[in-house]
Amino acid sequence: MKLLTNTIKNIKPLDKAAMDRAKARQDRLTKPAGSLGKLEELSIRIAGIQGKASPEIKNKAMITMAGDHGVVDEKVGNWPKEVTAQMVENFLRGGAGINVLAKQAGARIVFVDMGVAGDLKPHKQLIVKKVDYGTKNMCQGPAMTEAQATMAIEAGIEIVKDEAKKGLDIVGTGDMGIGNTTASSAVFAAISGKKVEATTGRGTGLTDAQLKHKIDVIKRALAVNKLDPSKPIDVLAKVGGYEIGGLAGVILGAAARRIPVVIDGFISGAAAIIATKLAPQAKDYIIAAHVSAEAGHTAMLEYLGLKPLLDLEMRLGEGTGAALGIIVIEAAVMTLNEMATFAEAGVSEGE
Amino acid sequence: MKLLTNTIKNIKPLDKAAMDRAKARQDRLTKPAGSLGKLEELSIRIAGIQGKASPEIKNKAMITMAGDHGVVDEKVGNWPKEVTAQMVENFLRGGAGINVLAKQAGARIVFVDMGVAGDLKPHKQLIVKKVDYGTKNMCQGPAMTEAQATMAIEAGIEIVKDEAKKGLDIVGTGDMGIGNTTASSAVFAAISGKKVEATTGRGTGLTDAQLKHKIDVIKRALAVNKLDPSKPIDVLAKVGGYEIGGLAGVILGAAARRIPVVIDGFISGAAAIIATKLAPQAKDYIIAAHVSAEAGHTAMLEYLGLKPLLDLEMRLGEGTGAALGIIVIEAAVMTLNEMATFAEAGVSEGE
Repeated sequence: MKLLTNTIKNIKPLDKAAMDRAKARQDRLTKPAGSLGKLEELSIRIAGIQGKASPEIKNKAMITMAGDHGVVDEKVGNWPKEVTAQMVENFLRGGAGINVLAKQAGARIVFVDMGVAGDLKPHKQLIVKKVDYGTKNMCQGPAMTEAQATMAIEAGIEIVKDEAKKGLDIVGTGDMGIGNTTASSAVFAAISGKKVEATTGRGTGLTDAQLKHKIDVIKRALAVNKLDPSKPIDVLAKVGGYEIGGLAGVILGAAARRIPVVIDGFISGAAAIIATKLAPQAKDYIIAAHVSAEAGHTAMLEYLGLKPLLDLEMRLGEGTGAALGIIVIEAAVMTLNEMATFAEAGVSEGE
Repeated sequence: MKLLTNTIKNIKPLDKAAMDRAKARQDRLTKPAGSLGKLEELSIRIAGIQGKASPEIKNKAMITMAGDHGVVDEKVGNWPKEVTAQMVENFLRGGAGINVLAKQAGARIVFVDMGVAGDLKPHKQLIVKKVDYGTKNMCQGPAMTEAQATMAIEAGIEIVKDEAKKGLDIVGTGDMGIGNTTASSAVFAAISGKKVEATTGRGTGLTDAQLKHKIDVIKRALAVNKLDPSKPIDVLAKVGGYEIGGLAGVILGAAARRIPVVIDGFISGAAAIIATKLAPQAKDYIIAAHVSAEAGHTAMLEYLGLKPLLDLEMRLGEGTGAALGIIVIEAAVMTLNEMATFAEAGVSEGE
């Protein structure tokens, strides 16, 4: 708990002076002021996050966390539980979407076993922070204890700390966990007070009847567990997941180290809700890579007060959207750093 | 005229068999079917364009064309005419937005003088296809002759032909030309029959009064020139520009060679209107990189029947949006080519 408390304390406001200098430079670059739109805003925000008028995006990492969910016993999705572990093995062999897109982004990937139901073979790209062999079925009681919830968050903070030692200019979040849209919808509904119908989508592709069942399962979990919506760790423990907690820790740890954190889709969004409920000032360090096709994600981003960079109708998770977001952010920072000013280029300025 | 006619004749339908094979592969990759959203659609379309079930995006080029506009004499913008030539020099020194973003995309850039008002210093990255020293003021008569309009289009076709010899898997379009949003709005209004108010925006940043003046200028140009909306070369000649014609040629030339062509913003959109009016089947080869912040661009993309990949509120031109679009398309193609199938990865499939 001490690591978490100290991390939250270390999250400071953005560096306004660095942002002002970045903005002043953007306005002198050879283009009509503002004509690079969101790229300009992004470059200025990254300056404020890193505290550098010329920010750097060289060391890039994706952190993709995996965990299993006891609620899968309620048949909330179409995929068998063992797919979580199988997909982690696919990650480690380089065959998944995140492998391809992180490579495009020039980002290394750190895979983390936060709570996969079985034991995974050791691998140099896999960090084991397993809190337990999957969560318990939240329809029958809490998914985990409060101590486990804190342990998951602190594991995420540790991961960022270790990655930062290697050099880390930007980090993206990703997830793998059969059943984790159910847990994420529950977290979102519990903390926001929104109706479960508004926070729940079709995950990997449910029929109408299956969606209705999923909503009923979440309602039951929320009824069985007496949640205190003002206590994010209580919510995480009762209806969350280990990878969701871990990702909340990644967000907090990155913010405390002035590292921009690019969140992926629905599961990373649930983690961001936990993180910003614990530390509202963390919000300035979070960039929403994209709005996913998962119903409820648009509402989630609105609740978080974040505007997504991309809308490519993706809903894969793993960090695939975040990897694309990192590419756009790097491009934004490069325009700030590398374009010539009017004076340097000898170009006449507009009136 | 013969080159243009033959090029149009050579634009064939997409390769349905390659698309079917790409789609079948996308459905076997380790992810819920459809979960990569637009990336899946893109990868399948590129397969159809290139006629390869495993398309390639290795050789990438941006073609950025510059031209001056006589209508600038009517004070339609805030920037002096000499900025066109100054910005081309900035391109050649590597200081502009397109230099930075094309580098991010791993794309070479071909700069083309289609009709800059002065003579530019020779440079290995600059191709001179100058049709004239800028267009004439379209408020006083045609911007160019029909022969010049055809010459501009054929120059664009030649450029693609030469680039294709070096290897070209994808091409992006870009523009530079003070006054060219005015010409593009006029082209769009003339061919679509839409009101000038609906096709005209603030360009590099006009006030309300300046916007009203710009609209009046375009209306005058359309009244002075007796246009035949069904004849795109007539429209290009009377109210277009040399870089607009050149880019129309790039689009047609790319389509005829089964090379995907990624269009940038408002000026490239006007070129696409000319190109698809000449050869409606070219549309399948065009990918709209983004919707720009220029008012009228949304309507333009709707008119073209194209959906933009990105919305980053950019309005710089030069091909900056197209360069980002190429990055997304490359990522899409890499997922198709490099992800493992369920069988390869030993991952159980969903029901």
